[in-house]
Amino acid sequence: MEEKYTQILERIYSEISPLITRGKVADYIPELGKVDPNQFGMSVCTNSGHEYIIGNSQKSFSIQSISKVFTLVLAYSKLDRKLWERVGREPSGTRFDSLVLLENEEGIPRNPFINAGAIVVVDILLDLYEDPINEVLKFVRELSGNEDIFINEKVRDSELECANRNYALTYFMKSFGNIRNDVSTVIEAYTSICSIEMSCVDLARSFRLFSSNGENPWNGKRILTKSQNKRMNAIMMTCGLYNSVGDFAYRVGIPAKSGVGGGIVGVIPNEMSISTWSPCLDKTGNSLAGIKALELFTTYSEQSIY
Amino acid sequence: MEEKYTQILERIYSEISPLITRGKVADYIPELGKVDPNQFGMSVCTNSGHEYIIGNSQKSFSIQSISKVFTLVLAYSKLDRKLWERVGREPSGTRFDSLVLLENEEGIPRNPFINAGAIVVVDILLDLYEDPINEVLKFVRELSGNEDIFINEKVRDSELECANRNYALTYFMKSFGNIRNDVSTVIEAYTSICSIEMSCVDLARSFRLFSSNGENPWNGKRILTKSQNKRMNAIMMTCGLYNSVGDFAYRVGIPAKSGVGGGIVGVIPNEMSISTWSPCLDKTGNSLAGIKALELFTTYSEQSIY
Amino acid sequence: MEEKYTQILERIYSEISPLITRGKVADYIPELGKVDPNQFGMSVCTNSGHEYIIGNSQKSFSIQSISKVFTLVLAYSKLDRKLWERVGREPSGTRFDSLVLLENEEGIPRNPFINAGAIVVVDILLDLYEDPINEVLKFVRELSGNEDIFINEKVRDSELECANRNYALTYFMKSFGNIRNDVSTVIEAYTSICSIEMSCVDLARSFRLFSSNGENPWNGKRILTKSQNKRMNAIMMTCGLYNSVGDFAYRVGIPAKSGVGGGIVGVIPNEMSISTWSPCLDKTGNSLAGIKALELFTTYSEQSIY
Amino acid sequence: MEEKYTQILERIYSEISPLITRGKVADYIPELGKVDPNQFGMSVCTNSGHEYIIGNSQKSFSIQSISKVFTLVLAYSKLDRKLWERVGREPSGTRFDSLVLLENEEGIPRNPFINAGAIVVVDILLDLYEDPINEVLKFVRELSGNEDIFINEKVRDSELECANRNYALTYFMKSFGNIRNDVSTVIEAYTSICSIEMSCVDLARSFRLFSSNGENPWNGKRILTKSQNKRMNAIMMTCGLYNSVGDFAYRVGIPAKSGVGGGIVGVIPNEMSISTWSPCLDKTGNSLAGIKALELFTTYSEQSIY
Repeated sequence: MEEKYTQILERIYSEISPLITRGKVADYIPELGKVDPNQFGMSVCTNSGHEYIIGNSQKSFSIQSISKVFTLVLAYSKLDRKLWERVGREPSGTRFDSLVLLENEEGIPRNPFINAGAIVVVDILLDLYEDPINEVLKFVRELSGNEDIFINEKVRDSELECANRNYALTYFMKSFGNIRNDVSTVIEAYTSICSIEMSCVDLARSFRLFSSNGENPWNGKRILTKSQNKRMNAIMMTCGLYNSVGDFAYRVGIPAKSGVGGGIVGVIPNEMSISTWSPCLDKTGNSLAGIKALELFTTYSEQSIY
Repeated sequence: MEEKYTQILERIYSEISPLITRGKVADYIPELGKVDPNQFGMSVCTNSGHEYIIGNSQKSFSIQSISKVFTLVLAYSKLDRKLWERVGREPSGTRFDSLVLLENEEGIPRNPFINAGAIVVVDILLDLYEDPINEVLKFVRELSGNEDIFINEKVRDSELECANRNYALTYFMKSFGNIRNDVSTVIEAYTSICSIEMSCVDLARSFRLFSSNGENPWNGKRILTKSQNKRMNAIMMTCGLYNSVGDFAYRVGIPAKSGVGGGIVGVIPNEMSISTWSPCLDKTGNSLAGIKALELFTTYSEQSIY
Repeated sequence: MEEKYTQILERIYSEISPLITRGKVADYIPELGKVDPNQFGMSVCTNSGHEYIIGNSQKSFSIQSISKVFTLVLAYSKLDRKLWERVGREPSGTRFDSLVLLENEEGIPRNPFINAGAIVVVDILLDLYEDPINEVLKFVRELSGNEDIFINEKVRDSELECANRNYALTYFMKSFGNIRNDVSTVIEAYTSICSIEMSCVDLARSFRLFSSNGENPWNGKRILTKSQNKRMNAIMMTCGLYNSVGDFAYRVGIPAKSGVGGGIVGVIPNEMSISTWSPCLDKTGNSLAGIKALELFTTYSEQSIY
Repeated sequence: MEEKYTQILERIYSEISPLITRGKVADYIPELGKVDPNQFGMSVCTNSGHEYIIGNSQKSFSIQSISKVFTLVLAYSKLDRKLWERVGREPSGTRFDSLVLLENEEGIPRNPFINAGAIVVVDILLDLYEDPINEVLKFVRELSGNEDIFINEKVRDSELECANRNYALTYFMKSFGNIRNDVSTVIEAYTSICSIEMSCVDLARSFRLFSSNGENPWNGKRILTKSQNKRMNAIMMTCGLYNSVGDFAYRVGIPAKSGVGGGIVGVIPNEMSISTWSPCLDKTGNSLAGIKALELFTTYSEQSIY
């Protein structure tokens, strides 16, 4: 068994190599644009406790939108269904930072994985916790077993300098009464959390939560009820890849979340978690080599939820 | 085991009873509006060959949009990926008969389960088969083992009389070159296929195809490759319930397709297929009692894909 | 005085010459695409009874959307304010054949000068007159004093062959109950009227109606009340040039209507009517040389309504 | 002659009286909501130097969006056509503070009279003038001959407290690079200028500029060239009343600008300027009694530009 996954990762790595530098590193955040594009890592954590890695799987990178999963877990585990009064859970069908839907839907973001939705979630965390940035850090450190996870302050500062569109989204939602805290405070917390850096290994370990029915597998602590965990996976499935949700479900077929830093992390419920990283993005803002790697993984391993 | 599902269906039936007449029968098609609202049926077919039924599970009803699954299988099994040149596979985020997205996307419908997409699929079938209506009938009869499945011509005629919006969609796509056949021919074929009547038992048996990796379990005939079957399930997951895809994934968590006749049919890959029927619809156009019944089923059986 | 306008037209003609073949003849209707692009005509009719012409001012061309003014006059003079129950009178801000606004506004077109609005007006004429096509022909012959105005049947037939988008608009409005007659009948009448051919001289003479307070100046017959005439001019001002209404008001500053055949005809209330024709269109679908000629005319003559 | 206008204003006043308290005072800005709704004033300034007033014509009120005309004149007189690189001049067809068009058009507002457009104009003034707020005050004092025109700081502060949507618009435009200054600075200047208070008399006197071909009639100083003045009038005609531009042109037929404070001021080129004020607004955000009064004025005086 162990050999099987080792071989699959090696096969993927060799097939993926020519693709790694295709696509384009996200450069709308200047600091993100400086990353070496020629990198690829992958990590698999099975529920049976095995771990398989390849490439730059231990190199930290900016998790960006993947952080939206962690903030959502923190808010959802506290508020449960009351959360859905302030954010929807339908796929958006548009760009991750569009304001159009927000106008039609009077300030209620379509789902927690578009920027507007994640910003509302951070606004909620600001009311729930004294120091939500630290809370998220503690949470990902606990889930991954890595105390060295940190916020890259250069990235955060670079991102804050080009946060005009997020400011627009947030003020717009505030005009509808769906932001409670000071806009700058919300944006700074949101941006700090996006700037957390983790490796493929860290991410795959963290996502064991979702393959283990909502229990932290490393210490047995229950984070989400079984039902809540199922629902987190459902939301990742239908909203996790912006407007290529359908294409990703079609090609890969697992709940997952991507970030513009080039990371993608997914889960096969009751089986395993899988992460990839490669900085160059396709036109939909997802890691080009990463999506292909996951497609090959579900094909070769015949693991899929369908 | 057998007892388990029998008990679950009974429990669901008793809990669902007060909900059956809530919501509203679809009456924009006059003939559909005549159905007795006080009906509920459910059927489960396991891969192990067992069948569990309750309520009006053998009563035929208008499958309407559920037919979009069958036409898609016929087109997809022939064209494979070439199909996606003419129809997308992303959730739409809007009403099932909206023209707005179609304008932005130059006549390529978002997915094969909104009206525009299903109409394109029928246009494709008109080029692939001499008599596509008959082909679909043959196909559902073979899948369900029921030779008595027929088209309700009263419903079809009633529907054709209020098909203005579908005519608009089709002419609009034709203006972009994405309809090849005569518009009336396409609409008549599409509407005929929507007017097929099947029972819960028929539908659950038909959907064994999707829980059986694309093989017709009754005769062993391969209809879809394993990979194509996975992908059909993925498309149902992300696009099967119009603009309550996210809510259905969250509450129920299985690939499924609904119709305005009140039917819903879904699949738990490698495990079973499940169908429900109750005519009264919620605001999103899906059977109110049917969704609740499926939610209870995945909860009580602890079956889900997540 | 007479000399003044003669000189102005000559000056315009010489300045405009290098522009005549810039832009692009409308070729989405194949028959329209066959016109010789290197043509320009202009005609001015003053309320004092003088007429000034230059270039190909007596050559007939397809009036296309200019016909929307004539059908509107016929419907408005009969229905007066009741007309506005079925069509709005606000500028659209979008393409002339967009379906998007129609969806938001439930089948009521923004104004009578976008295709959808003009189609509703023709639907109204079909209820008001035995033979509305002939009624429009009679009307423009009377207004222009030219019995030889006719419908170009080749253009009409060519246009009917690419009328899918107009069919879509019409079926869409019918789905909202805003079309009363058979869709094909409406489209055929609409398209026939668009295919009327008139010259600059005919058009300028016809528009003396609007510079003469709603009275046919040639026979003293009142067509519109003074107030209705003012309002026709206001509608041309705010809706006459599709989505370059603002630009045209800014550059030219008179009520006017354009057509994709390359004609534009406008009016300076109480003073004169002015028409131009040149087949090549700018990106907004208006005659490039024609707009420039009108801009120069209002500049050199210091005539404008502002 | 003098008698004529005196009688017309009296007739209007008596006819309008029952309407004055219909509609609703703008209360989204709390301080504006405190105004006594039962007020109506009107003022007419002819080019021959006569002035006619009735009702509360000398009472100051918040000019709000009428200020957009004054800021536009200041920017346009300096930048001329270069201004149109940063703001369009087409009617918007949507709410005055919509973000949708802005997204489609990549941060270039449709016209200078929607909030987004006026905010860009203020951003431009911040680059042109040391103290643009004071510049606008000087300008309206000079135009109206009233040194006592001031900013109501209570209204400004109240408005700043509910400026979230304007902040959203401005950050959004900044994300497209169409705002050069600090967002708070821009919003504060914009809001201060909106909070200028003037009376009907002040406004009608100011708008003599536009009936006098761009010359300040009180001191002969040229502010706009004749051509620029014509164009200002054209922009008011096509964009001055948000999304009831077409209806206003149809009913009243003159270039004009309205504000949510209940003021409307318009111009009949070469003839006169006219202002009205009454605080209660119709559904489109324009003074209900004010629009009716202007409609009656152009009807009874037979003055109109058409």
